Amino acid sequence: MALIVQKFGGSSVADAERIMNVADIITDTYKKGNDVIVVVSAQGDTTDDLIKKAKEINQDPSKREMDVLLSSGEQISIALLAMAIEKLGYPVVSLLGWQAGFNTNSTYGAARIKKIKTDRLINEIGRKNIVIVAGFQGLCKYDDVTTLGRGGSDSSAVAIAAALHADRCQIFTDVEGVYTADPRKVKNVSRLDEITYDEMLELATLGAQVLNNRSVEIAKKYNVKLEVLSSITRVPGTIVREAVKMEKMFIRGVTKDTNVARISLIEVPDVPGIAFKIFSRLAAKKINVDIILQSVGRDNTKDIAFTVSKDNAADAVALFEGSDLLKGAKIKCDTDIAKVSVVGAGMESHPGTAATMFEALFNVDINIQMISTSEIKISVLIDKDEADKAVAAVHAAFFPEE
Amino acid sequence: MALIVQKFGGSSVADAERIMNVADIITDTYKKGNDVIVVVSAQGDTTDDLIKKAKEINQDPSKREMDVLLSSGEQISIALLAMAIEKLGYPVVSLLGWQAGFNTNSTYGAARIKKIKTDRLINEIGRKNIVIVAGFQGLCKYDDVTTLGRGGSDSSAVAIAAALHADRCQIFTDVEGVYTADPRKVKNVSRLDEITYDEMLELATLGAQVLNNRSVEIAKKYNVKLEVLSSITRVPGTIVREAVKMEKMFIRGVTKDTNVARISLIEVPDVPGIAFKIFSRLAAKKINVDIILQSVGRDNTKDIAFTVSKDNAADAVALFEGSDLLKGAKIKCDTDIAKVSVVGAGMESHPGTAATMFEALFNVDINIQMISTSEIKISVLIDKDEADKAVAAVHAAFFPEE
Repeated sequence: MALIVQKFGGSSVADAERIMNVADIITDTYKKGNDVIVVVSAQGDTTDDLIKKAKEINQDPSKREMDVLLSSGEQISIALLAMAIEKLGYPVVSLLGWQAGFNTNSTYGAARIKKIKTDRLINEIGRKNIVIVAGFQGLCKYDDVTTLGRGGSDSSAVAIAAALHADRCQIFTDVEGVYTADPRKVKNVSRLDEITYDEMLELATLGAQVLNNRSVEIAKKYNVKLEVLSSITRVPGTIVREAVKMEKMFIRGVTKDTNVARISLIEVPDVPGIAFKIFSRLAAKKINVDIILQSVGRDNTKDIAFTVSKDNAADAVALFEGSDLLKGAKIKCDTDIAKVSVVGAGMESHPGTAATMFEALFNVDINIQMISTSEIKISVLIDKDEADKAVAAVHAAFFPEE
Repeated sequence: MALIVQKFGGSSVADAERIMNVADIITDTYKKGNDVIVVVSAQGDTTDDLIKKAKEINQDPSKREMDVLLSSGEQISIALLAMAIEKLGYPVVSLLGWQAGFNTNSTYGAARIKKIKTDRLINEIGRKNIVIVAGFQGLCKYDDVTTLGRGGSDSSAVAIAAALHADRCQIFTDVEGVYTADPRKVKNVSRLDEITYDEMLELATLGAQVLNNRSVEIAKKYNVKLEVLSSITRVPGTIVREAVKMEKMFIRGVTKDTNVARISLIEVPDVPGIAFKIFSRLAAKKINVDIILQSVGRDNTKDIAFTVSKDNAADAVALFEGSDLLKGAKIKCDTDIAKVSVVGAGMESHPGTAATMFEALFNVDINIQMISTSEIKISVLIDKDEADKAVAAVHAAFFPEE
């Protein structure tokens, strides 16, 4: 007997039929003698529909009221899923974020989980109930409902697994696990049986869209054994855990991310501390910067370019437009770009990874605009239109057809 | 400066335009220097849509999960209304039932308000916020969300007005107040400027559908000054309060109720205590009985007939079918009936009210099946198809065209 936390996303509970399918998976797990806590997201397009309703009334509603509105989405899905499990004849109870004990900070719209008060969860499990928890939401110190931001249901599930020392946290998706590249786009991809937290983190950050990266961070910190698997095929998925042995394969996967914008500050005065001032100003606005490139100075000026996520691009530009700091430097913002990356913990002991990647891109005539590397990944910035071609070429170079 | 509680029903917040209209009414009241607490229902058909979703999954879901599901409806409407008020530039905060301090018993689906913990409401009012409260919902001692049953938002509003000693509780509807009969069906009706709690109670119970009767009971108990008025025309409505003077008009109105079923138990053994046993069995199932009629005994049997609301009819029949108690008596259930009533506190001092009513019905050839009277009302049971004709005839008899 084990304690298993399962998470199902919005597409898994989009209609009555899919909800019954999810109820089957849950009760199969419960029947085997396990305690089961389930985290669900809002159904299908509910969140988008609610945002549309809000915008009809107010283009710029407060984040507090937006959280009240959006958290109703999970409320509907937990109730419907609980009803499906009732129909199958199993004991079940649904809990909203605040009932499940989720305490967050008060950053409405993008709250961080501070603590889970586990009394109610433990109590319901003790009564042999299957517990259905609304993901993505919690309660702040002002007794207000908060949401964790998009993808927050993954974090909700991992946080419960961490707080209750669950034996496993299963994240159900529409693919069978983590692949060497997006199986919907690239041919000859392989599913990984295992991957480390760090590798998964790089993949998540780089737009693999299988797991929200915040959830992987929590899993790593509390050593939660994660499994990414399909809600359709019912075969074992990919296990995410601490590295135990180094496998033969040194590259885990190839990903692309098109949610990226490059801001170029051209002819910035070349004075001491200018880079510090630029990036601390971005940090103060909580804008995350990814790749940074600084040219060699010339004529007492230099060029500084950096990438941010697309939704931060306008804010980032606004920070510098007409600013005294840059003394008339030109500002350019480019959103027609994509970031393509290879990830793998074995990379650092395999020289030539970068060379292989760059050669593959050169062979298909793709120009590299920026480069960034870490111990376990190499990313390049290229033209957006060439992203899929780039992923296919790089994947073929590292995973030749057998 | 006064504290005013306002309640808006689902049709008043059905779409963005109507929500903006309601926001106008609220901020007009606030601008005049009043503290304003607003109670709203779920938008238009939201509740029915949610029930449909549930039934697709489970024909007989638990009431607990149904409450989790249905309470999301008000959650959406309070957030949208708060956003509309934000747009008009006024300080506002939305509160769910449990945030507003609504403690109820744990009769899921039809919970009773036990107490309102007013701390948060008082705090928000003190900060000069317009407060938008989700009607129809509360929290029971198990920390579970409960709903008050249909029409519960009226009770929510009156309960807040009672708990905070509000100067007035305004119930906004799609009519301009309380009329001598349904203005959508009967000609020459008059709007009442004032009506007593008791009269309103009889009208509410009898299906006038202006105010939920539970809310009138609370208003009477705590002496809350109620006003029923239109959210469209912005003219004074009908004030509901304790009788202060007896007015000339002795009949307040004529109503019909078609949500009624008659159960007839025919040839019941005529033994002592049989009526007690029948009605205590109904009471144990919490089935309210309205009119009761018992025939004179004959051949050691008698007939007992009573009316219940339509949704209780099947349960009531099931209680007696094949029951030892009745020893082979026949059971009949008739739902093609309607109850038509005249209500007025002046009735008892005006002999001949019953005669006037019966004569009006006789003149249009309507057969009376059962009769029930109280100090302030006379009800008759008639064929359902003749209900509208009966209301028109009785109304014309008491309120002749001028």
